[in-house]
Amino acid sequence: MVVETQTARFDSIALDSGATLSPVEIAYETYGKLNAAGSNAILIGHAFTGDAHAAGVNHEGKPGWWDNMIGPGKAFDTDRYFIICSNVLGGCQGTSGPGCVNPATGRAYAMSFPVITIRDMVRLQKMLVDSLSIRRLLSVAGGSMGGMQALEWAVSYPEMVRSAIPIATTWRHSAQQIAFNEVGRQAIMADPDWAKGDYYETKPPARGLSVARMVGHITYMSDESMREKFGRRLREKEKFGFDFGVDFEVESYLRYRGNQFVSRFDANSYLYITKAEDYFDLTNGTGRLVDAFSSVDTRFLVISFTSDWLYPSYQSQEIVRVLRRINGDVAYCDLQSNYGHDAFLVDIAEQTDLVRGFLESTARLAEAA
Amino acid sequence: MVVETQTARFDSIALDSGATLSPVEIAYETYGKLNAAGSNAILIGHAFTGDAHAAGVNHEGKPGWWDNMIGPGKAFDTDRYFIICSNVLGGCQGTSGPGCVNPATGRAYAMSFPVITIRDMVRLQKMLVDSLSIRRLLSVAGGSMGGMQALEWAVSYPEMVRSAIPIATTWRHSAQQIAFNEVGRQAIMADPDWAKGDYYETKPPARGLSVARMVGHITYMSDESMREKFGRRLREKEKFGFDFGVDFEVESYLRYRGNQFVSRFDANSYLYITKAEDYFDLTNGTGRLVDAFSSVDTRFLVISFTSDWLYPSYQSQEIVRVLRRINGDVAYCDLQSNYGHDAFLVDIAEQTDLVRGFLESTARLAEAA
Repeated sequence: MVVETQTARFDSIALDSGATLSPVEIAYETYGKLNAAGSNAILIGHAFTGDAHAAGVNHEGKPGWWDNMIGPGKAFDTDRYFIICSNVLGGCQGTSGPGCVNPATGRAYAMSFPVITIRDMVRLQKMLVDSLSIRRLLSVAGGSMGGMQALEWAVSYPEMVRSAIPIATTWRHSAQQIAFNEVGRQAIMADPDWAKGDYYETKPPARGLSVARMVGHITYMSDESMREKFGRRLREKEKFGFDFGVDFEVESYLRYRGNQFVSRFDANSYLYITKAEDYFDLTNGTGRLVDAFSSVDTRFLVISFTSDWLYPSYQSQEIVRVLRRINGDVAYCDLQSNYGHDAFLVDIAEQTDLVRGFLESTARLAEAA
Repeated sequence: MVVETQTARFDSIALDSGATLSPVEIAYETYGKLNAAGSNAILIGHAFTGDAHAAGVNHEGKPGWWDNMIGPGKAFDTDRYFIICSNVLGGCQGTSGPGCVNPATGRAYAMSFPVITIRDMVRLQKMLVDSLSIRRLLSVAGGSMGGMQALEWAVSYPEMVRSAIPIATTWRHSAQQIAFNEVGRQAIMADPDWAKGDYYETKPPARGLSVARMVGHITYMSDESMREKFGRRLREKEKFGFDFGVDFEVESYLRYRGNQFVSRFDANSYLYITKAEDYFDLTNGTGRLVDAFSSVDTRFLVISFTSDWLYPSYQSQEIVRVLRRINGDVAYCDLQSNYGHDAFLVDIAEQTDLVRGFLESTARLAEAA
């Protein structure tokens, strides 16, 4: 069965910046069926460059980005649960973002699009969930920026979130995480084709976006996984070229992934979404995570990966420590993996088992309540 | 006393690529005095963007990049030793590189400059050392790419190297190390001002070079040191700007360091020197370090730093393990530091003590021999 992306439209959304976006659209997909009690809904948040197409196969024959985790009999079992995944606000795959046409001008918003936050993304997701007549989510789950959304949901709408599964994520972006994002933004803005964001009627800043993506890819992998995948293998040659063409496989890979990204992602969305990540701080600058979690009434499954140096395990452990301190219901696993940050997207049996078991016990508790 | 940079000139140098560069110049500084026996000379190799000005104060009032380590009574004690530091081949601070004028054309070499290797850098250093009538170096020392030079010296000219001090370095560039360099190169080459390297009569690829440098700076620091230095502190504001100006201190720092770099470094040298690093493999692709070290008759002091994730400690430990296996004379310390890769440039008392003691014992052994 081919999955379809749907779109919900709302009159307006008030944003953290004080701006209002009007109208606002959100693209989403659903898998499985909502039960009569409306108690089996799970919201999935995607990572930075993801989209609403999380599972199944779409019209283009493309499998969802978390298809190994979502489907009949899988961790997020669509025979039991009703799964929703939406494209984030500021994105470029169906939800309102800088590349969308501003009805007031008839032209793309570009940099006139308001700067948004993770909380704004979640606010729009809540409007979607409300519109689907779901009063309480069985779970909110996601990796990386999807995990930030799961945490933000639990803090912003505690009464609506029975459980949360933040994976390979953080409760606030660190200086190093901001720094990597800033490099990506500067690479894009350094490209003359960026033209202060007004490139929709000309050509996109392909070179800058490609460089930004290359940096990203290095941070998603680990030293070990790069050694295993590429090592010092040369690309279609037996000895060094002594020029500035491709020598090493890893160079070829990065150039390819950089170029490929340009065809599917909008450079301005890159700017807006990384900014939202950098602004992310569950404590609003106080650093007092215990206060942020004070109203939370959510079960947590927190997962990190040993070789993830972009969102290192200690950041997950800070969340877990505080939740335990306030007697929160939290399970935590630091999974052994060489895949670096990408591990959460990879088919790892332990992650599957953890999520399946956690959802089953959450569903049992929900029925008993 | 103000230090002067000198220049030595040679008719030609044969390079690993098969090309010959003719003529070739090398900029260098010396500190202290060569003794009558010519037995107290130490060569210092600089890191990627360093130069010959390692110690003292020059005409511009600028202290050397390793002034905390080199000087009277310091680790590299200029009251006892004769210290030489030269700018690397391919560089842009006095030694022949792509920005130099090709006498055959009267114009800058630009991309017609031959691609060079770490071994080529060392080959030119040897010509310099020979010209100074030094038959055997008491030591060759350096951090990062300077450490690669120290290792290459010990392997290429074992009879000339009594001891070597490779710090925060590797015996071959890993996939991740190549990847970070490749991103920097692509950032430069993506800048239209790069103009295939022919920018010397127009304007340099400032934006691309700046982005490359920003990436570099992140890799030189550690997650911890960035947290300590910047955290999530805002730059001259109390709340988020909700725009794409500078919000965070770390953004301001990176932009500043990126821009500043452009005024002192040549983008083409960035390309050539990173390529030399990426080609660096002491085993010439065999991976058999034990073979590479088979003729080595050098004492080693190997130093790494716990928070250095660009040249992680395990790479130093691989060197140490092999040297011990062949009964080499090797001392090793993994120094505790939060400074990341930059640690070797920072004033760390343990590094000072280790180097001082190692040089003293090497000098004693040399006298006894």
